[in-house]
Amino acid sequence: MAVLKVHGSPISTAVMRVVAALYEKGLEFEFVTIDMKAGQHKSEAFLALNPFGQVPAFEDGDLKLFESRAITQYIAHEYASNGTQLICPDSKKMAIMSVWIEVEAHQYDPHAGKLGYELFYKPMFGQTTDPAAVEDLEAKLGKVLDVYEARLTQSKYLGGDCFGLADLHHLPTLHYLLGSSAKKLFDSRPHVSAWVADITARPAWAKVIAMQKS
Amino acid sequence: MAVLKVHGSPISTAVMRVVAALYEKGLEFEFVTIDMKAGQHKSEAFLALNPFGQVPAFEDGDLKLFESRAITQYIAHEYASNGTQLICPDSKKMAIMSVWIEVEAHQYDPHAGKLGYELFYKPMFGQTTDPAAVEDLEAKLGKVLDVYEARLTQSKYLGGDCFGLADLHHLPTLHYLLGSSAKKLFDSRPHVSAWVADITARPAWAKVIAMQKS
Repeated sequence: MAVLKVHGSPISTAVMRVVAALYEKGLEFEFVTIDMKAGQHKSEAFLALNPFGQVPAFEDGDLKLFESRAITQYIAHEYASNGTQLICPDSKKMAIMSVWIEVEAHQYDPHAGKLGYELFYKPMFGQTTDPAAVEDLEAKLGKVLDVYEARLTQSKYLGGDCFGLADLHHLPTLHYLLGSSAKKLFDSRPHVSAWVADITARPAWAKVIAMQKS
Repeated sequence: MAVLKVHGSPISTAVMRVVAALYEKGLEFEFVTIDMKAGQHKSEAFLALNPFGQVPAFEDGDLKLFESRAITQYIAHEYASNGTQLICPDSKKMAIMSVWIEVEAHQYDPHAGKLGYELFYKPMFGQTTDPAAVEDLEAKLGKVLDVYEARLTQSKYLGGDCFGLADLHHLPTLHYLLGSSAKKLFDSRPHVSAWVADITARPAWAKVIAMQKS
């Protein structure tokens, strides 16, 4: 097997998403740190891996990919027999999981990502959090989590009976939000809270956090 | 085969995306019009199909789906042997197409969708287009199309050598933007312009436009 390579910064949510999938699969990989403060993601060498100049980029031998959710899907399909099964072999069950993969990308992440930016990245970069933006984003994310609460009364995981990509894709933004005042949004919804406790306790996720701290 | 049903409004870009996939596949379907002006997409009956209250919703017998890009993926996989092949059987080629499916969703659509809203939907609803927003969105979309121009010098279609989901997903927003002042963004880039001419000339796409006018 070719050496798998992830290019990125370990604090990027998109990078954490890909690394989480690799740990779930028990796959060895090389992590190539991109110094974003120094603008390395806009260098010619990096733009050859991702023309949009965003982390992560991924290599599996000759195959070069970008866009985190495309990379996790490739890992899940190509290494289906390794580690945790992250997709469903049954086409109709997979269609349901795909719905919730899209829900994460189009309903949850637009609010959760911006909220994480306000509550985590801005203070880290010495910028000032905008309380009005936080209030607005929390209200919007709360409405999404109301739908999640109803969904999780019918199904243990968002995508179906088993943990899979639809759940995994939430972990990075969840991690930042759980360490902020937005934690209440998850704690106040019992099924969401149990789902969060379950998916954040996974050994593969602990490895992502350990890598980030190292 | 169960009757396929699409619930939505024919002017919605997300609905047009699903209908385009069905016509490419040559699949018969029932179109159930949702009166969005009357708020029918927020009715209890519709929320049972899509808890986020957005069109389209889709039914294939007992299977109920929402999120347009999850629906097109299901159609492409489940009806792989019908009509146009919209995905790649080879896993590495499919991974590349998945990258460009994600690019449409996360790089192109956020700007193209908002620009379509300013230039098409706002005038239609009697609202005033914001010229500053248009200028900003055109600049952002232009940068994305610069990447497309480079990609399309290497590959006839965005996702690879053949037309597929990555291309198809662009058609609805393209349709509205080509009828607006934003057309120049596409016309001024030769490979993008040739790609636009190719994919908008597909007979299946003509059927979507005909359905919209009927």
